[in-house]
Amino acid sequence: MCIQKRENQVVVPNEQFIKQAEQLKPQLYETVVKPTAIVEMKRDKKAIYGWKKEYFAPASTLPNHEYCKTDSVILDFGNHQVGFLTIKIRPAGSPPDAPLKLKLTFGEMPVEIAEPFESYDGWLSSSWLQEETIFVDVLPAVIELPRRYSFRFVKLEVIDTSPKYRVIFENVQCRAVTSANISDVQPISHQDPELQKIDEISIKTLADCMQDVFEDGPKRDRRLWLGDLRLQALANYETFKTNKLVKRCLYLFAGVPDDKGMVPASVFVAPKLMADDTYLFDYSLFFVSTLHDYYLETKDLATLQELWPTAYRQVVLALERLDKNDVVKDSSDWWSFIDWQENLNKQTPSQAVLIYTMKQAVRLAEELDTAEKDQLKVRLTEIMKAARTYLWDEKQQVFISGSHRQVSWASQIWMVLAGVLSNKENQQLMKRLFELNPAVGITTPYMYHHLIEALIIAGKRDRAILEMKTYWGGMIKDGADTFWELYDPCNKNFSPYGSHLINSYCHAWSCTPTYLIRKYHL
Amino acid sequence: MCIQKRENQVVVPNEQFIKQAEQLKPQLYETVVKPTAIVEMKRDKKAIYGWKKEYFAPASTLPNHEYCKTDSVILDFGNHQVGFLTIKIRPAGSPPDAPLKLKLTFGEMPVEIAEPFESYDGWLSSSWLQEETIFVDVLPAVIELPRRYSFRFVKLEVIDTSPKYRVIFENVQCRAVTSANISDVQPISHQDPELQKIDEISIKTLADCMQDVFEDGPKRDRRLWLGDLRLQALANYETFKTNKLVKRCLYLFAGVPDDKGMVPASVFVAPKLMADDTYLFDYSLFFVSTLHDYYLETKDLATLQELWPTAYRQVVLALERLDKNDVVKDSSDWWSFIDWQENLNKQTPSQAVLIYTMKQAVRLAEELDTAEKDQLKVRLTEIMKAARTYLWDEKQQVFISGSHRQVSWASQIWMVLAGVLSNKENQQLMKRLFELNPAVGITTPYMYHHLIEALIIAGKRDRAILEMKTYWGGMIKDGADTFWELYDPCNKNFSPYGSHLINSYCHAWSCTPTYLIRKYHL
Repeated sequence: MCIQKRENQVVVPNEQFIKQAEQLKPQLYETVVKPTAIVEMKRDKKAIYGWKKEYFAPASTLPNHEYCKTDSVILDFGNHQVGFLTIKIRPAGSPPDAPLKLKLTFGEMPVEIAEPFESYDGWLSSSWLQEETIFVDVLPAVIELPRRYSFRFVKLEVIDTSPKYRVIFENVQCRAVTSANISDVQPISHQDPELQKIDEISIKTLADCMQDVFEDGPKRDRRLWLGDLRLQALANYETFKTNKLVKRCLYLFAGVPDDKGMVPASVFVAPKLMADDTYLFDYSLFFVSTLHDYYLETKDLATLQELWPTAYRQVVLALERLDKNDVVKDSSDWWSFIDWQENLNKQTPSQAVLIYTMKQAVRLAEELDTAEKDQLKVRLTEIMKAARTYLWDEKQQVFISGSHRQVSWASQIWMVLAGVLSNKENQQLMKRLFELNPAVGITTPYMYHHLIEALIIAGKRDRAILEMKTYWGGMIKDGADTFWELYDPCNKNFSPYGSHLINSYCHAWSCTPTYLIRKYHL
Repeated sequence: MCIQKRENQVVVPNEQFIKQAEQLKPQLYETVVKPTAIVEMKRDKKAIYGWKKEYFAPASTLPNHEYCKTDSVILDFGNHQVGFLTIKIRPAGSPPDAPLKLKLTFGEMPVEIAEPFESYDGWLSSSWLQEETIFVDVLPAVIELPRRYSFRFVKLEVIDTSPKYRVIFENVQCRAVTSANISDVQPISHQDPELQKIDEISIKTLADCMQDVFEDGPKRDRRLWLGDLRLQALANYETFKTNKLVKRCLYLFAGVPDDKGMVPASVFVAPKLMADDTYLFDYSLFFVSTLHDYYLETKDLATLQELWPTAYRQVVLALERLDKNDVVKDSSDWWSFIDWQENLNKQTPSQAVLIYTMKQAVRLAEELDTAEKDQLKVRLTEIMKAARTYLWDEKQQVFISGSHRQVSWASQIWMVLAGVLSNKENQQLMKRLFELNPAVGITTPYMYHHLIEALIIAGKRDRAILEMKTYWGGMIKDGADTFWELYDPCNKNFSPYGSHLINSYCHAWSCTPTYLIRKYHL
């Protein structure tokens, strides 16, 4: 997600927490999935990225064909899969007198199969592009690829055999893995089939991201980020209720704070637990939020007691960034995520995130009846007041952000979520936001989630549903099996990474409609 | 070696023989070898294929450098190796937030490292080119590549990491394997340092081809061919004396004859023993030769008794190819190897191979005192007479071959080896051969071996040594660590496969100088 690195990072591991996280490691459910069809990728101007799949033959016909040098075949697994591929290959003709050189390309989307990865020149590592070139010295063989892939389509390309033999792909299958148990989900039968479909795909998206940890995306980054975790946990409470996995992730973050006690924005779990050297103002605060939501869901007091000091510490550190007026300091050496936008000024949304999470901290402090409770309340009042005093533009009747007084969607949305204004004011602000339609808009499903929730909070349920249908429903119309990391209905080729090939098309922060639909009975 | 396929091949396995071969499977000796230097490949017009290695730094400095995207390094293992590569890789910088994509290229020769394999357009399978592209998801890691490579040089190319981290190659090593025990070789101290060196490199070549079976070349085809086996066995008797491996290979061939009893030109041993569908007139006869040499070396009467019927059958089948004049029929639907040359007519050399091997068959039949003994002798006399009558050109005083009465080096050489002429006539013929210098010359070290032996048989030891030094000594001057599959001192770029990249630079049929030097006390 980011390349900002904090120099001189010092991590102070909490071995007790790390051990607890380790003990909560989930069991993975495995399902063997076979391809459903042989397909071809065709140019189509109306299709997303200009490519669509076209049915060619049932997958059962695969072993009928003998493949020789330069032959290829594309298999469609019918839906998004996260797992391990096995191929059984048999030779035809003379005994194989040279190795088989086979290239495999995995794609969540047709474009990944259709456009050569060699064309990729984005700024994220090309090593994320899912491909393998393997040599098979002895045939027949069962090839079990050791890496996990995230895909719906697999292209098999015979780079070379020898003039004396061909190959037959007798059996191709995927051992799909997830730590989500689909039978744990209470089915809904929504009267609106579009919302029903959005709910289903949200759940599939969440399931495919639930592995050893809540991953942001099984294709990329395959990693636990706090911002994604918060949303996944919310969707999880409404669906799988795999609450132990949320607990595990909280302990993972609490296990590797820095020397000031700040939790990192993300952690690596292999070869061992490591803090990423990225620290984000908002993500660290979302530790409070995730613990708050976890506690409200589970009433797991022991965990709350154990992790409260870590949560409280994030608030204390965030408060250090306030200026004399109790406003979050804006500066160039500081990073708050909020949304994937270079132009977005983060000051005001960050102030709102601080208020949002401090309210949750107060709730937890009350639950624990801790000494910090009263002081937190005092500060919260001051900071909310500061937001209204310094960040609210009376004339424009909107929140502004930064020295250039930027009016953005993010600032209004987060201030609504933070509950700085009255219900009526919230309602008016959200109405005004759509009327003004500020140029600094929304980039990610992550920010879209907050828009929808803000609309609901502001009592604009119909608008919330409309926006959800436009956005997530739009992805479905554009062929989503799982919801995407990035989607701009007005600019469908958008990628902040310089290429749609590297985008993740199953991304956790996009899974929240199931939470919104179920939680708010949309 | 070839792409000729015999349709409707029927193999009649002899399970008893196959079982015996299996029981003789050798133990592999393992040696851990580390690279000696970091080198660069430089253009050099005088070097073979225009490339030479240039020392850059000791290999011990490898971990001092951090490699990022597009960086590469070439390691020199100091000598030819056949084995399995292990690399220990450590990240530097931030925790690795994307997989490492690493390309490895293995080369027996500098040219394989210097010229991109993408440029290859020869007619053998490109899958023989030794390379891998691997993705490493978790770092640090110890990568144990599962395939065996034949190489001196390894190029490591970092295709991508991420902007946040680099990699350090902490330890690279090769687990070299061979079924030859180097301590079994009686060292010689030759007064001629050039012959001493040729002897050493012959032995290294043989050792690197001695694996589970006598392979033709550890890079390509990694397979047991009868023509190579015969020569390897001869070199082996003078050096390693791993006679059980010769016995194993004889049983492998005898285990999979066709429905007429003919042994194939080569066999595959994985995933299980399989006869190749290539059958060569001369190679099948060399089963007799290899059994003969094995018996003379070991006096293993039980094996001779058991395998005699297979050997005798090869002679009987070869005799079926004789015309009414007792001359080997020439035709287009027939293949005898002799040498890697399209222009070479194979009739007369094949007649000579028949005589050569029939003499050995007679010797074995006498040893066994079998009923076939006398009949074999009678036929041998007739066939030798036929050779003189129909294949000897009185006017030119040379052997001719085929309907176009081709005068080739191969015909004269093989007839000398077959002992069709008197010693004096042999001497004169070899002298005349050099004077005439027929256009249809010698292509492979395999045929060069027969030239040297024919010179020795004809009493021309000095000429034999001179030719050996020119040919094998030439390879050494051109940088051979092991002797090559192909070498033409006058046309060093020669490859029958359309590219020198695919040539094997450690090839069994090139290992015979140690046999010639030691057997004939050169």
